[in-house]
Amino acid sequence: MGLQGSGVAEEKEWPIEGVIELSFPDEETARIVYESVLYEHESVPYRRSRIEFLREGNRVIIRFLARDNSALRGTLNSYLRWIKVAMDSLEV
Amino acid sequence: MGLQGSGVAEEKEWPIEGVIELSFPDEETARIVYESVLYEHESVPYRRSRIEFLREGNRVIIRFLARDNSALRGTLNSYLRWIKVAMDSLEV
Repeated sequence: MGLQGSGVAEEKEWPIEGVIELSFPDEETARIVYESVLYEHESVPYRRSRIEFLREGNRVIIRFLARDNSALRGTLNSYLRWIKVAMDSLEV
Repeated sequence: MGLQGSGVAEEKEWPIEGVIELSFPDEETARIVYESVLYEHESVPYRRSRIEFLREGNRVIIRFLARDNSALRGTLNSYLRWIKVAMDSLEV
């Protein structure tokens, strides 16, 4: 990815930031999905992105910083895949 | 994806929302990347996600709503890939 070792990376350590919020029908569903993914969240050491993974009521929230575009894609794909697996197992 | 046709989709039409902000070293770089991707943004009709694609100063901003997790992954991967292509062509 072009950002690594580039002017962008030198100017700002984490040039990408953002948030994704997923709303579930109820707090219990959000809690089950959150706790399933929390295990993965706590297991994986990321170096090129930083993730805050939260639940607020019926919402699951992913806040992130990333060093570059490809780090961000890898990280978001992991989290969204884990959330999908958790949801599929609930059949919500 | 579990959300389609599920309780979640029935409860809320766009259960996923979020924003990604990418900072560039200067406004000119952000403008060039933004305008390259804007062409793609305006060409593609999305049905399962809604995207606002903006530039503010040296930042390129993607705001999104999605019907489900897989729609979101597809959409974000497209935008992040287009941004990468634009950046690679600039060698930033």
